[in-house]
Amino acid sequence: MPSLSPLAPAAFPAMPPIAGVRLATCEAGVRYHGRTDLTLVELARGTTAAGVLTRSKTAAAPVDWCRAALADGLGRALVVSAGNANAFTGRAGDAAVRYTAQATAALFGAAPEDVFIAQTGVIGEPMDPDKIVQALPGLRAALDAGAWHQAARAIMTTDTFAKGASATAKIDGHTVTINGIAKGSGMIAPDMATMLAFVFTDARLPSAVLQNMLSRANQHSFNAITVDGDTSTSDTLLAFATGRGPAHGPVTRLGDSRLKGFRKALEAVLVDLAHQVVRDGEGAQKFIAVTVTGATSRKAARRIALSIANSPLVKTAIAGEDANWGRIVMAVGKAGEKADRDRLAIRIGGVVVAEDGVVHPDYVEAELVPHMKGRDIVIEVDVGVGRGHATVWTCDLTHGYIDINADYRS
Amino acid sequence: MPSLSPLAPAAFPAMPPIAGVRLATCEAGVRYHGRTDLTLVELARGTTAAGVLTRSKTAAAPVDWCRAALADGLGRALVVSAGNANAFTGRAGDAAVRYTAQATAALFGAAPEDVFIAQTGVIGEPMDPDKIVQALPGLRAALDAGAWHQAARAIMTTDTFAKGASATAKIDGHTVTINGIAKGSGMIAPDMATMLAFVFTDARLPSAVLQNMLSRANQHSFNAITVDGDTSTSDTLLAFATGRGPAHGPVTRLGDSRLKGFRKALEAVLVDLAHQVVRDGEGAQKFIAVTVTGATSRKAARRIALSIANSPLVKTAIAGEDANWGRIVMAVGKAGEKADRDRLAIRIGGVVVAEDGVVHPDYVEAELVPHMKGRDIVIEVDVGVGRGHATVWTCDLTHGYIDINADYRS
Repeated sequence: MPSLSPLAPAAFPAMPPIAGVRLATCEAGVRYHGRTDLTLVELARGTTAAGVLTRSKTAAAPVDWCRAALADGLGRALVVSAGNANAFTGRAGDAAVRYTAQATAALFGAAPEDVFIAQTGVIGEPMDPDKIVQALPGLRAALDAGAWHQAARAIMTTDTFAKGASATAKIDGHTVTINGIAKGSGMIAPDMATMLAFVFTDARLPSAVLQNMLSRANQHSFNAITVDGDTSTSDTLLAFATGRGPAHGPVTRLGDSRLKGFRKALEAVLVDLAHQVVRDGEGAQKFIAVTVTGATSRKAARRIALSIANSPLVKTAIAGEDANWGRIVMAVGKAGEKADRDRLAIRIGGVVVAEDGVVHPDYVEAELVPHMKGRDIVIEVDVGVGRGHATVWTCDLTHGYIDINADYRS
Repeated sequence: MPSLSPLAPAAFPAMPPIAGVRLATCEAGVRYHGRTDLTLVELARGTTAAGVLTRSKTAAAPVDWCRAALADGLGRALVVSAGNANAFTGRAGDAAVRYTAQATAALFGAAPEDVFIAQTGVIGEPMDPDKIVQALPGLRAALDAGAWHQAARAIMTTDTFAKGASATAKIDGHTVTINGIAKGSGMIAPDMATMLAFVFTDARLPSAVLQNMLSRANQHSFNAITVDGDTSTSDTLLAFATGRGPAHGPVTRLGDSRLKGFRKALEAVLVDLAHQVVRDGEGAQKFIAVTVTGATSRKAARRIALSIANSPLVKTAIAGEDANWGRIVMAVGKAGEKADRDRLAIRIGGVVVAEDGVVHPDYVEAELVPHMKGRDIVIEVDVGVGRGHATVWTCDLTHGYIDINADYRS
């Protein structure tokens, strides 16, 4: 096992119970041994569901299942297993998911399509659902409103720390809570950026409203991070609203202004989880924020920022604590978006490195040494042609990445 | 200095003289010390020129110069320097190139726009042309029709071996010769894929005909390789035809059938050089050919093949000698092109690994061990939706890549 990421938060956050949500985990032995790998989440009757799923053309069987299960906007249970992604497993893979959903539904007297399934791990290995199904009754008996940290741990694969985030917001003066857990450290790239993330709230929200808020918040969080530019076949972000919290007034409209605080809190939870995913990027030693301004549009700014954030040459330079801004110029150039070479400006760690397309006369590389030796690297680029701006987050590319990925299956 | 790539050819090829081409190299001390870094190539009067240049939006000053110099289709000299790319150097960079071209032109009584300049190395450092200009008279005195290996060496940066290729073809029964040299090992990606490549022939060809053949051959060679997905600000491919070889009949039409052999030979030289660039990929331990068939179009096949070839997860798996075909499925999925997950077939080293979207029942991973331990890895993927096919070449992603790139400037 790789050792704990140096970018890990000091501790797992305090996560209060969410009325209507209970969790349990166990060692089902799907692939790993000596650790928990299976999580069951019970959701109160009437819980609404929303989700964002990978755009991969070779999506895993559970992703296809979730896409269909989202249609009625309701969720009664979530089953997450780690070790086998059940991806590229053909019809047998689909059948394994259906069987798991049916067995879970039977436990709760629910419809199979109200059970969500997420699976992560190795691609292309046949999935045997029996180990999971056999463990379900025991899990049901162990359901606990406080098992957030345990769940965050049981969904991990190559992660070096469990990822959780929590926030509160007011609706009509009533305080509602949002809890989220996530896993993912490699194969992280838009779109979608996470492998698995699950968000729960006790607010009462129609699924269409929840979906709308989730999709927007996802744009500025999981879709704004990248570790290696690779997109998983299993990327799944699901949100559930139990409606079992304090009795705020009914919400029906997408743009309801009473949801302003909730929207902000939801985005904060997703951004927090997304940052944790980057901070656990395989082999990551540094957390990098890339902000691009002055682009023709937000989309152009985002493409340029991702071009920088995905560049192996930029990422290895940062691993080497080298403020090699020439490679940033290269990455701006290859993005294919409009940029004015002779108005380009670059700041690293707040220090003006280049302005008007040339190195700044006052720039002294030594000035940047302390910033480059730190854990948090800040890159700002203005491309000088418009007002579009965007920020993305990534990590450096190190020997650790090679170690982990040249040896993942053995 | 990194040690010689294990994928290097056994020896630099024999390269015969090309009538109308003479070369010389020297130690100008642009950046490196104790090695040659400056190359002058004299081209006979009447030599035609063609070129393909980087599409980077932050192209280097010499690239802008070459783009303009190609307009009249004539070339009289080529000056290549290594150590400083003269990229992101603003107007001073442009002036440095102009000054170098003027000084070279004066040596040969030529127009400055018939002098081509290529510069490679660090980005963003001011370029002092004096060291180059002062060395030119000495280089002119040393011009030699046989200095191919010397030139191939003097244009290197992080390359671990000099790259050359040679071929002959018949036009009207007369044998003409094509020689090429190239450099480049990181920051190699379409479009364009090479950093610098120069091709010379003694055939007599109008520049429009030469340009047409060069652009096509480039598609199947330099634009079909990738090392790290990064595109240089300096990528330059130039071709020169002196017309001083055996007197074949005049060529005027683009599609002239007498050029069939020449087209083939030109493509062979470019493919040979492109493969050598991949074989010198920074840290490369394995040469990987990725062929995609069954796509909706050639373009779709190429995009899928590049998605596989650029995937850090695929490249690290191969570095680890792991036939992790699940990551190939992932890379097919993220390419965004149409693919039928349930008809996908994968062969590695000729062994059928997956068929109809699932692992093949007879597949035994042990069977692939000898192939994965070898130097040449062959991946074939059929995506099951059409007749488009394409092949691209890349190398694995190893600790050596990190070593070289985390420490390039120091």
